[in-house]
Amino acid sequence: MKRRDFARVSGLAMAGAWTGATPVLGDHRSGPGRGQAFVVDATRLGERMRELATFGANAAGGIDRVAFSDANIEARDWVAGLLQAAGFETHTDFAGNLIAQKPGTELGLAPIMFGSHIDSVPGGGNFDGQVGSMGAVEVAATLADAGRQTRHPMEIAFFTNEEGGKTGSRALAGQVERFELDIETASGFTIGEGLDRLGGNAARLADVRRDEGSLTAFLELHVEQGAVMDQDGIDIGVVEGIVGIMRWNVTVHGMTNHAGTTPMDRRADAMVGAARFITSAYRIAHDTPGRQVATVGRLEAEPGAPNVIPGHVRMTLEIRDLTMEGVADIYAAIEERSAEIARQTGVTFSFERFYTSGAAPTDLRIRDMVERAANDLGLSPARMPSGAGHDAQSMALLCPVGMIFVPSVNGVSHAPEEHTELEDIVNGSNVLLRTLLALDAAGLVTKQLPRP
Amino acid sequence: MKRRDFARVSGLAMAGAWTGATPVLGDHRSGPGRGQAFVVDATRLGERMRELATFGANAAGGIDRVAFSDANIEARDWVAGLLQAAGFETHTDFAGNLIAQKPGTELGLAPIMFGSHIDSVPGGGNFDGQVGSMGAVEVAATLADAGRQTRHPMEIAFFTNEEGGKTGSRALAGQVERFELDIETASGFTIGEGLDRLGGNAARLADVRRDEGSLTAFLELHVEQGAVMDQDGIDIGVVEGIVGIMRWNVTVHGMTNHAGTTPMDRRADAMVGAARFITSAYRIAHDTPGRQVATVGRLEAEPGAPNVIPGHVRMTLEIRDLTMEGVADIYAAIEERSAEIARQTGVTFSFERFYTSGAAPTDLRIRDMVERAANDLGLSPARMPSGAGHDAQSMALLCPVGMIFVPSVNGVSHAPEEHTELEDIVNGSNVLLRTLLALDAAGLVTKQLPRP
Repeated sequence: MKRRDFARVSGLAMAGAWTGATPVLGDHRSGPGRGQAFVVDATRLGERMRELATFGANAAGGIDRVAFSDANIEARDWVAGLLQAAGFETHTDFAGNLIAQKPGTELGLAPIMFGSHIDSVPGGGNFDGQVGSMGAVEVAATLADAGRQTRHPMEIAFFTNEEGGKTGSRALAGQVERFELDIETASGFTIGEGLDRLGGNAARLADVRRDEGSLTAFLELHVEQGAVMDQDGIDIGVVEGIVGIMRWNVTVHGMTNHAGTTPMDRRADAMVGAARFITSAYRIAHDTPGRQVATVGRLEAEPGAPNVIPGHVRMTLEIRDLTMEGVADIYAAIEERSAEIARQTGVTFSFERFYTSGAAPTDLRIRDMVERAANDLGLSPARMPSGAGHDAQSMALLCPVGMIFVPSVNGVSHAPEEHTELEDIVNGSNVLLRTLLALDAAGLVTKQLPRP
Repeated sequence: MKRRDFARVSGLAMAGAWTGATPVLGDHRSGPGRGQAFVVDATRLGERMRELATFGANAAGGIDRVAFSDANIEARDWVAGLLQAAGFETHTDFAGNLIAQKPGTELGLAPIMFGSHIDSVPGGGNFDGQVGSMGAVEVAATLADAGRQTRHPMEIAFFTNEEGGKTGSRALAGQVERFELDIETASGFTIGEGLDRLGGNAARLADVRRDEGSLTAFLELHVEQGAVMDQDGIDIGVVEGIVGIMRWNVTVHGMTNHAGTTPMDRRADAMVGAARFITSAYRIAHDTPGRQVATVGRLEAEPGAPNVIPGHVRMTLEIRDLTMEGVADIYAAIEERSAEIARQTGVTFSFERFYTSGAAPTDLRIRDMVERAANDLGLSPARMPSGAGHDAQSMALLCPVGMIFVPSVNGVSHAPEEHTELEDIVNGSNVLLRTLLALDAAGLVTKQLPRP
């Protein structure tokens, strides 16, 4: 409801009735009024979203454009052509990233990078990565159409294999390990073979590592992949960071016994212990102030017969929060509670951590710029965490980052039903454009503020 | 502790120091004092337990004597010889049951049947079935040694394939269905082939059905297969019946979602719904007066990934009680509670019953006889349900039944570690002998009292 109204105010008619409004020039620094905003070409953006969706289109209405596939390569070539037409020079780096560059007007400034990815999961949708990619292309084209030059050099990146391990962006941060090159991907090629297919060079991967400070900042537009914005009528998500993740294998040790001959008060039922653990983990993550989440997604009971009291249950516990301290606090509370459950039920718990992904907060100043851009365009912003991983997470190891979310209809992602309304894509692209220009104007004095 | 003292009072030294006490004759009807009881030969019984354990002995110290195996057939032949030596005529009926018969002194009385089974589960122990079988043989031998004849004809049954579906006893009750003959067993033979191997006749299985009233009663001695007697120091379990069983597949329907992008308060987590269900089922079965049990032994969550909120959980629910009304009451309470959980958590529950096994109460008069026999021998009896199934359950469809339990060390069963002390086997056999004689003396006026 609310979002629709704002979208109209921002200069766009409803989807399907767009008139191809010509971009209106304006100087963001002087604070343009509504209607005279410097905005992207909604019609062109819509057409390019539809055209990109043809690369790897499948019968289900989604796409199979996994990294290193022919469809992935063809789409990259098409994107490179669009960027060249906008006056960018393009090349593929050793990590297979498609990089587009345009000089700035002032010497000595580190580039502002923006972009996303155009690979998909197998059987994916047409918006994850694609929105940020076409948004970046549209921002580049809008600036070119207006003959507008930035002070900082601009660099647009279309990262390699985001869905299969963020290979391209992690390579820029020097995070890709040797063994990863041998991992077989959904394309049928190993990552190493795939890099060479894209025009990269697996043997020289280490050379693409960027120095800290070599970029002014990185900006990424992306779909939320959750339902919060859609449900709450939020136009623009001001991403506070990509959450940190820890995962544990939790084992409940009880006593396997005959379900018929063991009275209720003489059981050490690992399933009952696990059930109380799951309920507690949910309660703790739910009731503690903050936006952390805790999930038990997998569970196996042994021996797993209807007539046997399970002696062992193995399950996974995942905790995500914007800070690793937050993850650790929730884990400590859950572990403490499990010790109580153990005392009460006669089972024991053991924990083995098997996965950690560091939290990546966004730059506080860029958050403010994103929020201001949304407000200036009459859009409703809200600060929120990104629960999913993104290339911006790798880039945060190198430079200040900012992320802009647009709504996912019903929160669906990684499926053909994934959808984001074109007006939201346009809104997000306009916010990206304005944030870029604000950042270009102001720069960032220090590399990054202390993390919150 | 308590049990050990009583065992000494009953005329037996500790295991390993037995002197092979000669059975002392006595008339149970005149209530023999301690020390002059009419008792079985503990030494012989111990020797025969050890000898039977050689048929199918495996490296783990247990037995592989599955129905229809060579070891099963050889053991049956050996048992038949023992019974013939005790003056019984033996034959194999069409259901492969080894049947031993001896006439009584009075005409017109229906036989009293007793016995158990000598087949095992794969990798089983040396006591499940074996104790009741050797106890029955010992009772027969003790009576023969004493030249004691019963008023009623005696019939001893060693039932076919108890562990694989109670084929032999269910055939006597006319319960075996045609399709079962094609089921492949752990022996590698189908049940039909196996019956023929034992000397039965699968084609004439229906002819072994006994008429209701054709037996005065059936008695079975068995190990508890639970830990209650061992933990509580009970010598003799006066079995109140074999519990009825119902099993359901319970499905929890929630909403599959990204574990990172879905806040705690917007989830319909099927795993959390399942956890609260399991806790409630445990509580209800635990807190309701009675000896019912409820178990969730198997659980599968879909999609089953650490980073995905499960949209579906499938689990089993099993409820056992001495009456089917008791099972139904517990189920109703659990189902009602699940409706509350559904309202609170946003999931839904569906139930599909897939297994029912009727409750089989023992005869009230026989319970009293078992208890009196135990008391007369200075043993501590306790009334208890049988949580596991037994041949007596099938026989209850034909005639009044009684069951006697002896303790299982630590409650272990269906494993090489299964163990029952020899003194307990001797105690149980003595109670079987006395119960048989009490029953023979008093008869049972009506076929069966109304079920409690």
